[in-house]
This record gives sequence, C-alpha cells and structure tokens, in this order.
Amino acid sequence: MTTAKRDTYTPESLLSVAVQVFNERGYDGTSMEHLSKAAGISKSSIYHHVAGKEELLRRAVSRALDGLFAILDERQACEGRAVVRLEYVVRRMVEVLTAELPYVTLLLRVRGNTGTERWALERRREFDHRVAELLKAAAADGDVRGDVEVRLATRLVFGMINSMVEWYRPDGRGMGEQEVADAVARLVFSGLREDR
Amino acid sequence: MTTAKRDTYTPESLLSVAVQVFNERGYDGTSMEHLSKAAGISKSSIYHHVAGKEELLRRAVSRALDGLFAILDERQACEGRAVVRLEYVVRRMVEVLTAELPYVTLLLRVRGNTGTERWALERRREFDHRVAELLKAAAADGDVRGDVEVRLATRLVFGMINSMVEWYRPDGRGMGEQEVADAVARLVFSGLREDR
Repeated sequence: MTTAKRDTYTPESLLSVAVQVFNERGYDGTSMEHLSKAAGISKSSIYHHVAGKEELLRRAVSRALDGLFAILDERQACEGRAVVRLEYVVRRMVEVLTAELPYVTLLLRVRGNTGTERWALERRREFDHRVAELLKAAAADGDVRGDVEVRLATRLVFGMINSMVEWYRPDGRGMGEQEVADAVARLVFSGLREDR
Repeated sequence: MTTAKRDTYTPESLLSVAVQVFNERGYDGTSMEHLSKAAGISKSSIYHHVAGKEELLRRAVSRALDGLFAILDERQACEGRAVVRLEYVVRRMVEVLTAELPYVTLLLRVRGNTGTERWALERRREFDHRVAELLKAAAADGDVRGDVEVRLATRLVFGMINSMVEWYRPDGRGMGEQEVADAVARLVFSGLREDR
C-alpha cells in the first residue's frame, strides 16, 4: 500500500510529476491512478488542483509551446537580416529545449487522440511554419542555399534539434547547453565539412 | 465478429502486418489478439508461423538492422578517404530508411523492456559507433571540422536522418528518396549557409 503523503503540491509541482509519468508511460497509458501513485496523494487531491489528466497535458504542452513561441517575439528574432535572426532562433530553440526538457519531450510525443493533443499539433505546425518563413526570407536574401527545398530543410533542421529529447540529459556530467547550442548552430549553418 | 480469412500468409507478409500494428499501438500495447485481428487469421495460425510476438519483433528489427549494417560492408563504405566514405554512408542510410521505413521506424521506437529490445538497442549503439569511427577518421584527415565533438556530431546527424521516420511518406506525391538523400548530404556536409 502506498502511504499517502499530505498534499503539499502546487499546480506547478504536480505538473512536474505528471509530465514525468506521461513521458514514461505515454499519455494514453497514464491513468489518474498512476498519477495519484506517482504523486503520493489521493485522486481527489489531484482533482482539487485540476479537472483531470487532459488539463495536466494542456498545461504541460502549453509550457513548452509558450517557451518556443516566446523566442519569436525576442528582439533578435525580429530585427536584422533573416539569416542572423534564423541562427538566433535555432540557438534559442536548443536553449528552450534543454531548459524545458520534459515538457518539450511530451510535446514532441503528442499523437492527436484528444482535442488537446490536436491543438498542440496545430500549434507545433504553426511554430514550424514561422521558422520556415524565416528560412524562406533568408533564401530570398541569398544567404541560405537555394538547392534544398525550404520545407524539407526546415524538417531536417527541426529533426536534428528535436532529436535532443532522445539523448540530452542535464546531469552536469555530459555536454552543457551552450556546447550543444554551438554545435547545432555550426552544423546547421556550415555543415560538417572543414573549409579549406 | 471478424471473418477469419484463410491463412495465406508467408512469414514475410505476416511480418509486414505485425510491424504496422506495432508501429500504431506500440510493441508493449500490442497483444496476439490485436495481431490476429489485423491479419484476419486466428492466433493459432499465427503460432504456426512464429513462436510469439517477440519473434515477430526480432525479425522486424533484424530486417532494419541488417539493412543498415550491410551499408558498412559495401565497397564505397570501405575504400577511399574517410569523408567520402562517410558521405556515402549518410546517403545510403537515407535510402535504407526510406526503403525499409516501417521496420526502421519500429527499430527507432524500441525501448528496452524485453531481451529482444535490449539486443536491438545494443546493435543500434554498435552501428552508431561504427559511423562515429568514420567521422573520427575524417576529422583526423582534417576533412571534417574539429570544433564539434565527434559523439555529439554523430548524434545530431543521426537525429536529422532518423527524424525522417516522423514525416517521410513514400506516397509518390511528396519528395522522392533521392531528393531527400541529396538534401541530407548537402545539409550534413555543407550546412544551410550559401557560400559567397
């Protein structure tokens, strides 16, 4: 039997437990029972904070989406040459991904079975589209190669960045956030090949 | 009630149905009942072909792994300058991924709950390691930039390539296999930035 602990959760700290469980079991595979066990509080205590697991999902993916969309409003993402803005956005995406790792991981695993999931997928597409527009502007400036189609390039760059949720662990022993941001920016903009 | 169809499956065609179900429901979430329904034959007919769902998983991920490892034995992957061999391997990885899409998709989603899954993860690591060795050799030749750590670069390049399972659909309407292989090779080796 689980010893129920006193409910000292805030909506924030409960969310952090829920996201961990969602990432481990998958959102579909998580019941309120699982959440109650992981948090060590009763289901009714959870219902005191949120209407149900879909609200927890909505809050969690919102946190990731808000972090990503906020990048696009930062001054360096709005002013100056498109290719420079694009590089800024790529670096900031790596930073948001590392700072909000479990939330972005959940966002990237969303499948579309519920209204909240479909909404999250729609917002992700919107974000991808905004970045693709920036890439298109950089190509129009002649700063970005014209021989890779914009949508394909965007997908591949997002693929590289998003893969981080599979291997990046902020354990203090591995690579730091800035090292990864530098590496991603170098590879995305200049590639592997040594210029000679 | 499902109308059972006569069992005209070969081990190959049954595998193709099983992989589709594994990818849709997740391996853990798939029961012999699900496989039987999807194939339209009885469970005992399935047992006539295989010992159980883990054997289907082993066959499916083996097909993906065999395809990937075979690349490393091809002449162009073994002879010549490391950076040229590396570019060959990257292009061939894209080709194997598109040709064996459902099998590679399943391989990349394997989590490690069963012996077969742990074995598949181990083989994946071995493949990644072989490609990382090639990258290291190219860096030693001075053909690949030295300011991104080899393991990190390998992860990011694999991230870009592997992301294809999320969006590449061989429906004849979208991008062709060669277009994607060209785009990946260009981005991985030369990056987005236009040289001027």
